[in-house]
Amino acid sequence: MRNPRLALALVVVAWATAAFAQSGPEAARAYREAHESAILRDFSELLRRPNRAFTPEARGTALFIRDRLREVGVASRLLEAEGASPAVLGVLEVPGAQRTLGVYAHYDGQPVDPSQWTHPPFEPTLYSRALESGGQPIDFPADGAPVDPEWRLYARSAGDDKAPIAAALTVLRAFGEAGIRPTSNLVFLFDGEEEAGSPHLGAFLRNESKVFDAVDGWLFFDGPSHASGRPQLVFGVRGSFGLEITVYGATRNLHSGHYGNWAPDTGNILARLLASMKDDDGTVLVKGWYESFEPIGAEERAALATMPDWDAELKRELGLARTEGQPQSLPERLLAPALNVRGISSGNTGSLARNVIPNTAVAALGVRLVKGNTVAQLRGLILDHIRAEGFHIVEREPTMEERLAHSRLVKVTGGEGGSVAARTSMAEPFAQSVIGAARAAADRAFGEGSLVLAPGMGGTLPLHLFTELGKPAVITPIANHDNNQHAADENLRVANLWYAIDLFAALTTMPPTDR
Amino acid sequence: MRNPRLALALVVVAWATAAFAQSGPEAARAYREAHESAILRDFSELLRRPNRAFTPEARGTALFIRDRLREVGVASRLLEAEGASPAVLGVLEVPGAQRTLGVYAHYDGQPVDPSQWTHPPFEPTLYSRALESGGQPIDFPADGAPVDPEWRLYARSAGDDKAPIAAALTVLRAFGEAGIRPTSNLVFLFDGEEEAGSPHLGAFLRNESKVFDAVDGWLFFDGPSHASGRPQLVFGVRGSFGLEITVYGATRNLHSGHYGNWAPDTGNILARLLASMKDDDGTVLVKGWYESFEPIGAEERAALATMPDWDAELKRELGLARTEGQPQSLPERLLAPALNVRGISSGNTGSLARNVIPNTAVAALGVRLVKGNTVAQLRGLILDHIRAEGFHIVEREPTMEERLAHSRLVKVTGGEGGSVAARTSMAEPFAQSVIGAARAAADRAFGEGSLVLAPGMGGTLPLHLFTELGKPAVITPIANHDNNQHAADENLRVANLWYAIDLFAALTTMPPTDR
Repeated sequence: MRNPRLALALVVVAWATAAFAQSGPEAARAYREAHESAILRDFSELLRRPNRAFTPEARGTALFIRDRLREVGVASRLLEAEGASPAVLGVLEVPGAQRTLGVYAHYDGQPVDPSQWTHPPFEPTLYSRALESGGQPIDFPADGAPVDPEWRLYARSAGDDKAPIAAALTVLRAFGEAGIRPTSNLVFLFDGEEEAGSPHLGAFLRNESKVFDAVDGWLFFDGPSHASGRPQLVFGVRGSFGLEITVYGATRNLHSGHYGNWAPDTGNILARLLASMKDDDGTVLVKGWYESFEPIGAEERAALATMPDWDAELKRELGLARTEGQPQSLPERLLAPALNVRGISSGNTGSLARNVIPNTAVAALGVRLVKGNTVAQLRGLILDHIRAEGFHIVEREPTMEERLAHSRLVKVTGGEGGSVAARTSMAEPFAQSVIGAARAAADRAFGEGSLVLAPGMGGTLPLHLFTELGKPAVITPIANHDNNQHAADENLRVANLWYAIDLFAALTTMPPTDR
Repeated sequence: MRNPRLALALVVVAWATAAFAQSGPEAARAYREAHESAILRDFSELLRRPNRAFTPEARGTALFIRDRLREVGVASRLLEAEGASPAVLGVLEVPGAQRTLGVYAHYDGQPVDPSQWTHPPFEPTLYSRALESGGQPIDFPADGAPVDPEWRLYARSAGDDKAPIAAALTVLRAFGEAGIRPTSNLVFLFDGEEEAGSPHLGAFLRNESKVFDAVDGWLFFDGPSHASGRPQLVFGVRGSFGLEITVYGATRNLHSGHYGNWAPDTGNILARLLASMKDDDGTVLVKGWYESFEPIGAEERAALATMPDWDAELKRELGLARTEGQPQSLPERLLAPALNVRGISSGNTGSLARNVIPNTAVAALGVRLVKGNTVAQLRGLILDHIRAEGFHIVEREPTMEERLAHSRLVKVTGGEGGSVAARTSMAEPFAQSVIGAARAAADRAFGEGSLVLAPGMGGTLPLHLFTELGKPAVITPIANHDNNQHAADENLRVANLWYAIDLFAALTTMPPTDR
């Protein structure tokens, strides 16, 4: 069915003529139960397609998805740009719909090192359970044969992030058969460069502003479930940028015997500077650090209070007797800007350690922003702090004149670009609608009260590109928390694909948002 | 002349029958002026012999030196041990001498990377001046042809440390011809493992205690002239040891987005620990650090006051606007124990920096001891300091139980072995004799008042092996300060070889020490 207009017309006719015997979630559930093995096979077809951003294969995968969308009645095309992996745009207009839902996912995947994988990463392999729990490979079941929801499907991007695409296609097919129509217009945006930092996503959003301006709220299908295994909604992400600071001693490494106790000790100078930035409790001491971020509201505080208390478990798993800012929990800490040392290099350690005073010491800093912070502002605060510690700052290797003129000299680079944070208030009517629909889907898939509401996550997603357009956005993760995202042996638990189907059906048929 | 007893007897006869027309230094000077080109060729024969410790070639070099010593009347043999590069022992007994001088040098050399050298390191090459001053290679002069003292002889160990051996052989030959006899018995000890840490030297000293107990004072021919180019005597060396400290975060690297602001920031933890050890002025904050070292006396203070003020020049050369403990000078700072960071490793910096919170941060510390310090005591102070900072110390990778039990956990390794410092008081009668003789040689070779008296140097030499025997020891460097010791294109300035001959002649004929 190559003509999307025709496809759309047929679907609309189907909806218009169907008897509305079932709710959307009920229809999707019934369809899934009747087609479990076929759904797994269809998903495998998608997983089989290599998807490293910027490769010709990724473009082929985009075309494949575009065609599958057309088959379920979505007007679909590629968004292209010079040097870009295309994004797939899909539009499903629903007559009479008062809201337009944006659906974001990404079809591209992390690079793979096949030697690390138990099976080739693009040969989807079904397992009786997780490998590390003793799972065994099993054949794909015949049509109608029972499917165990604890099975795992192993392949690159099984969890991150092709599963939402498979779920959406399944639900739309189910709706088509059952004559169900979404309650919102749907705008699909399947990114082809997320794992490469989505360099063209902003341009695509701007270039197609006519389409995207119509979106009332975004659903961001990415990321894993809560570490407890429970499904979650996440209302924000942090931004990030990196800085590198280099302190200088002599123009060359000096013999620690001949010069030790006289030559500047670069490791100690850097240590003193880093130590000045953060106290023993993890509180950042950079002046103004906590002044610009947007505090959370009553809904977020309530959500924090009811989140699973996972810190004790995490600390046990990670071998930690204490954490920064304890007794504050991890979810709470993720709502404040972070400053971490990503790396330090100076001289050598271990068997390569030599009797030198290294002529430089370098630290790579990583900053995580929260809503209200900007890269320029936090970067500026760090530079101010470094100056207040008595350092003269240069942006490239210092000249001899600079070395001789300044007793404390530091090079600071990086911080350009970076990404800002985004957070949607849980009090937003759109957020409330999404919470309602997702809670119903989670209750059905994983049991009453299973849905976790997380005010923010710690990582960085290009959510700000959407929220900067003034639209609320909610992250709707569906992958199991142990999906080995970004690593070898990535996998999706079948139960999580079933949940994704329930969730997508619930979200696309949720009642209009109360405005 | 294979029979050393016969050789010795002949020399003694020569001395006994010669007319004492000249002083020792005059005789050596006259001999040198008459044989300059031959002396350079003889030195080249010595330089041609490979001398990396523990190689068969090094043993061949030891045999060569043993035979040359015998030729000038020194009873000589190898000191051997399982797996050792032999040391060369030489004894010259002088009838009636009331003192025995120990003469230490080492014939072994640093490893070479020939690709770094302008000429092969064991093909001695004569230059019109230093390479970096535009020197050109020249042929070895014919017998009697003039020799420019600014010429340089390029070869491994030209400066460090075969030149003293060549000078001693020359002087003894000159003395033999002139019928001069040393005023002291001489005990030569030419180490074959100095650049490898002299692992067997202590055993050799113990095994041959009958020979070495007789030594009244040691002359330690090693190291370069003062940085100003002036000759120097040095009365002490520092000891050294290394420690490695590793702080622990989680059991694995954590994503800085998902965990930043909660997970322990290993780089910062290490930075805070290092910063606690030393203040901004370079003063070590480890409790007790400055309590055990032996203060200098009036002679040393006077020597410090008259040393060339080389700090300003050094700072200009090294691009330093300030130094630790300024305005104290480098020579003064070398008389106190030092604590430096030799290296720090944690995560990655530069293009390899990633968004992780590294699970460990490691610092290699280097300690330099001065007289009065012991390795065990300074190591203990550092451990006490780390504990006082709230850390639990382990000596190997921590167990999960240890991780969960201790909120601050550090592994400390190293510090075994190490070496202690040594310093001979400049007020010692032996030291005063050496000062007198060396001052005369320096006045003659480099001009009135050229000799620098340095109470201590910063580096480490196995001087303590000699001073622990209760004997004074003075370091008598002869190489030019820019001899590229340990590096490619090592060289000796001819004027410094002439000085070495003057110096050796003066020291071996100095009047008996006033006791």
